[in-house]
Amino acid sequence: MRQQIDYSLYLVTDTALCGDLGVVETVRQAVEGGVRVVQLREKEADTRRFVEMAVALVGLLKPQGIPLLINDRVDVALAAGADGVHIGQSDMPYAMARTLLGPDAIVGLSVETMEHVTEAKRLDVDYLGISPVFATGTKTDAAPPWGLEGVRRIRLVTNHLLVGIGGISAENAPDVLLAGADGVAVVSAICGRPSPLDAARALRLAVGA
Amino acid sequence: MRQQIDYSLYLVTDTALCGDLGVVETVRQAVEGGVRVVQLREKEADTRRFVEMAVALVGLLKPQGIPLLINDRVDVALAAGADGVHIGQSDMPYAMARTLLGPDAIVGLSVETMEHVTEAKRLDVDYLGISPVFATGTKTDAAPPWGLEGVRRIRLVTNHLLVGIGGISAENAPDVLLAGADGVAVVSAICGRPSPLDAARALRLAVGA
Repeated sequence: MRQQIDYSLYLVTDTALCGDLGVVETVRQAVEGGVRVVQLREKEADTRRFVEMAVALVGLLKPQGIPLLINDRVDVALAAGADGVHIGQSDMPYAMARTLLGPDAIVGLSVETMEHVTEAKRLDVDYLGISPVFATGTKTDAAPPWGLEGVRRIRLVTNHLLVGIGGISAENAPDVLLAGADGVAVVSAICGRPSPLDAARALRLAVGA
Repeated sequence: MRQQIDYSLYLVTDTALCGDLGVVETVRQAVEGGVRVVQLREKEADTRRFVEMAVALVGLLKPQGIPLLINDRVDVALAAGADGVHIGQSDMPYAMARTLLGPDAIVGLSVETMEHVTEAKRLDVDYLGISPVFATGTKTDAAPPWGLEGVRRIRLVTNHLLVGIGGISAENAPDVLLAGADGVAVVSAICGRPSPLDAARALRLAVGA
């Protein structure tokens, strides 16, 4: 049976941003601070390194019951025994990813246009990633921002769980939830901060205990 | 049961080199000219495009009984229903790839040092890719060339099928086979040639009918 996931505070990793502290230590602190879902995103690493990182995070997160999703790469998710994947519109088509991962895996899908939202209504995706909510410097190929008004519009047309991502901070996270999102995903609000632990705690307070 | 493969003439694709003719038409001509195995290698395309290319090649090659391998990406191989993968030393570890693909898939492994060859002796890989045999401009991160002497040395220490790759042409292909390889793989000797069909025919003659 598919897990019930708490998407309220969701970390997407960025290896370059994590710098000397590293992805694993950043994730450890983030989870201690209140992050409830982690997505490993690697756009530069070769497959061997990507798998090693995923295996390390599975070892850290599985004992704590925190789900780990892999960005894009179904093979890495399967090899490492991660809980699922997050896919975008230029990744593997949803139906193929679901077939390869099976019915119990978590599969999230980014939506960048209202057409994507409408198409996703017939899919049993676990959540939609509203991407980006605000303008962001982290993802250079991002689509135009949805804004809070976009989150409200998406909420009106779909029953899927919604996770906002892009330019989200402790300051604006409550607005994103009020607009209808079930959770917020962050990258630079945690990765690369002097204390990822403190940053996660501040975000945890912002989205509710 | 695992297929018996004829590795005598093996094409590795290069999308940039194939240019306006395209990968699919290049592969079509190459197979008509005598290529017996095809590896789809995509280092730039996003996952969606990679899967689309793989699906197109499966549609072309399966009816002709020509095996299609996917470079590195087990997910793309599984999604497209390809015959297997070719992995390098920085790709997924062999045991993981074999587990995900199953016992009947074809899994080839690149060897760049004698240590790789020795390590591979205990693995049920389908073939070893001797990489590179000669200096090549196609793969910019290639290891130092093995040379014909390297092929001979590998032949003495392993029972695995051997496919040479790197700088191989119709002129030097017979020497690679004489040194102990079971087949030769080419990229630029076919991709980007004015007539991939004629180029494949010349290679076919060189390696034996």
